[in-house]
Amino acid sequence: MKQFLSAHDVFDIDALVATGLAYKADRFRDKGLGAGRRIGLLFLNPSLRTRLSTQVAAQHLGMEAIVFNVGAEGWALEFADGAVMNGSTVEHVKDAAPILGQYFDILALRTFPSLQDRAADYSERTLNAFVRYSGIPVVSLESATLHPLQSLTDVLTITETFKEQRKPRVVLTWAPHVKPLPQCVANSFAQWMTAWGAADFVVTHPEGYALKEEFITGATLTSSQDEALEGADYVYVKNWSAYEDYGKMPPASGNWMLTLDKLKATNNAGVMHCLPVRRNVELSDEVLDSPHSLVTQQAANRVWAAQAVLSEILKQA
Amino acid sequence: MKQFLSAHDVFDIDALVATGLAYKADRFRDKGLGAGRRIGLLFLNPSLRTRLSTQVAAQHLGMEAIVFNVGAEGWALEFADGAVMNGSTVEHVKDAAPILGQYFDILALRTFPSLQDRAADYSERTLNAFVRYSGIPVVSLESATLHPLQSLTDVLTITETFKEQRKPRVVLTWAPHVKPLPQCVANSFAQWMTAWGAADFVVTHPEGYALKEEFITGATLTSSQDEALEGADYVYVKNWSAYEDYGKMPPASGNWMLTLDKLKATNNAGVMHCLPVRRNVELSDEVLDSPHSLVTQQAANRVWAAQAVLSEILKQA
Amino acid sequence: MKQFLSAHDVFDIDALVATGLAYKADRFRDKGLGAGRRIGLLFLNPSLRTRLSTQVAAQHLGMEAIVFNVGAEGWALEFADGAVMNGSTVEHVKDAAPILGQYFDILALRTFPSLQDRAADYSERTLNAFVRYSGIPVVSLESATLHPLQSLTDVLTITETFKEQRKPRVVLTWAPHVKPLPQCVANSFAQWMTAWGAADFVVTHPEGYALKEEFITGATLTSSQDEALEGADYVYVKNWSAYEDYGKMPPASGNWMLTLDKLKATNNAGVMHCLPVRRNVELSDEVLDSPHSLVTQQAANRVWAAQAVLSEILKQA
Repeated sequence: MKQFLSAHDVFDIDALVATGLAYKADRFRDKGLGAGRRIGLLFLNPSLRTRLSTQVAAQHLGMEAIVFNVGAEGWALEFADGAVMNGSTVEHVKDAAPILGQYFDILALRTFPSLQDRAADYSERTLNAFVRYSGIPVVSLESATLHPLQSLTDVLTITETFKEQRKPRVVLTWAPHVKPLPQCVANSFAQWMTAWGAADFVVTHPEGYALKEEFITGATLTSSQDEALEGADYVYVKNWSAYEDYGKMPPASGNWMLTLDKLKATNNAGVMHCLPVRRNVELSDEVLDSPHSLVTQQAANRVWAAQAVLSEILKQA
Repeated sequence: MKQFLSAHDVFDIDALVATGLAYKADRFRDKGLGAGRRIGLLFLNPSLRTRLSTQVAAQHLGMEAIVFNVGAEGWALEFADGAVMNGSTVEHVKDAAPILGQYFDILALRTFPSLQDRAADYSERTLNAFVRYSGIPVVSLESATLHPLQSLTDVLTITETFKEQRKPRVVLTWAPHVKPLPQCVANSFAQWMTAWGAADFVVTHPEGYALKEEFITGATLTSSQDEALEGADYVYVKNWSAYEDYGKMPPASGNWMLTLDKLKATNNAGVMHCLPVRRNVELSDEVLDSPHSLVTQQAANRVWAAQAVLSEILKQA
Repeated sequence: MKQFLSAHDVFDIDALVATGLAYKADRFRDKGLGAGRRIGLLFLNPSLRTRLSTQVAAQHLGMEAIVFNVGAEGWALEFADGAVMNGSTVEHVKDAAPILGQYFDILALRTFPSLQDRAADYSERTLNAFVRYSGIPVVSLESATLHPLQSLTDVLTITETFKEQRKPRVVLTWAPHVKPLPQCVANSFAQWMTAWGAADFVVTHPEGYALKEEFITGATLTSSQDEALEGADYVYVKNWSAYEDYGKMPPASGNWMLTLDKLKATNNAGVMHCLPVRRNVELSDEVLDSPHSLVTQQAANRVWAAQAVLSEILKQA
């Protein structure tokens, strides 16, 4: 693997999941692989699970990890070609990224969308600029529109828990929230489910919350959450703001918060969420505190997903 | 040791002090003990000495340490059961703590009191929630009401410096400050002195500054600093705000700042303070810059106290 | 080397450069040198390149590095002797620095000038207080008036790229900026060029921007940028605010931004800048994106300069 920005960078998702699960069984099996190699974790936006799990994964491989929180520590980057930099930006990504490429062997980067300018967000300007100018493998720690490490974790968690000889029915359902969130996790999960191809994948959301076409091609779409849940093996719960009326929160009719009562129609489904979760807004206490919940296992699996990705990049480099 | 939240978690204080002093004599004597183990240092409130000394102690034991400053990096936790999280809190401790329990072998945590709500502070809600939900050993890096790593350091420093065949007279004296401070250091020092039992322990403070009953049982109390200092071997200087009129600073009559003149009544006492110290407010320059002062030695000893605690937990895990 | 605060701490600049270049050829040649040793990187002001390159250098030597960002994490130090600390400062450097000296083997420190009070800035009060009170070797990561690690990098970059059997002509030219910057990089570069003695060194700047006398003794001075550039082998571009009318930005007549057209008069000069650079304000895109530019190589060389300095200190300690 030369980079890890989306499902398209992965040749064989099942093989990558198997690598992750092998690390879960024996975390130090490749403990010398990263010796003398260094990963930079650059956070243009804050992170808890992603930062910690990636640092832990790097340690398991014997790599040095250096964290750089730019949100807190301040770094106003310029992205426009030809800009006369007499305003608030202090450094052009053209100048900054190549240096990081000299200091590190792998650059991992988190950045968020503006949720104001859809074209800019979906162009993945920030991520792509670091890919273009750093000259080293880049790993997305969540970008403006995708969250591939989360999605790999999700596929790994489904693979690990599903024991039947058939395709699982996996439902992605929109959930309420108090503020507009990116579409990243939903886009990415849909992209991975489709690329993986080993599940019957259903997406359900209120009117106005359709995801971008390219991510849901091949998925079954329904505006009825009840219909979607029927026979589900996994229910992935996630809020996202509108793609169409970009970044807005059109009113959703009906009650979209998942409850134990709704889960009765499922095949004793496992409930997934990428965390953090707003309890009793996105998901009820009764579901999160029930045996249905996979959220802690899923978050713990972030380490093995990250370790699989880093190891594949190290092996190629 | 399964956790380190107060003196009550320590079976034998003298043995723990001896372990710390053994590390002071040979810091790398257990350098392989923490191999492949990881400690998370979670700062809900900022820290200098505690953070650095604990990181250093972990390194001496060959552990990986990952620091997470939440104050700066933002993480509004919910603690109330059943809360409908449609407000400012973004994650419930029930969901956050178990993940940290998956990423780390030991979780060390700093949190401060509000100084507004005494019952809430003294319930140690934050610390206890992480103990309850993380599922791994928790080490207090100072909590709402106690600071056990500081107190262990203090006992170690007294043990290291007292050379006579009798009990030392140890005085905890209140000192002035410009803003209300927690009672943690004072509560904790009193708790450890009593649990240790190897000193004659005296507490002195102005009216209105009595510590909570449970911490001073067994101590000699006096409102006369002069009387307290008579024959003292150690004088521990510390400001705290009122426990009774909680978090307030009732006016203190008389001059409570320690001076060289006041020290004449002591047995050439060593002067202790946990730092940071407001010079010429809490303690005069003349005392801090005199041979009486143990403050640098005491702060340096933080490393050995932390190393003793981490090693005891590692040996049990 | 006992400390690294300026060119005056270096006995033989060429030997130090050779050490750096040897590390560039084989970064792990001294990978055991720092085993069991620890460097504290204390940032009273923020940093990207300096922080990362020093951390990387420490890792190459097998040292532990602990970063402490004080700007973000808050630490208002008192420097005045005898201060009654009833105001906003919370700790005296007399008390703080000795503790850092106990926790670390080397202390590296970044601090910025106020640009308000010239006498205070040029006294290097902050840096000198840590030198005085920490009791361990101190490395400047840029101080109020100098930036020696940058200058060592600059000499190393010139040494590495100059292939002729004569002295190179090296020009330091002032450049425009949108806000007042410290004189550190310019002062320090001038100091190192003079101490090195292996270049013909020319300084050019608009009226009002003369550097402090002690740094430019031995340099050729001219207010004509055109004259300075004539036959130059290296052009070091840097903005600084006025030393005379301290911290101000007197209007500069003429166009001081370097262009390809201006470079025609040079000996196909390499263009240097310490970064970050304001494109099309300090330096034009056409120069930065041309083969003249050495800025990425120069920034990458920060690692080898830092590694040379740390190794010299470790060998002496």
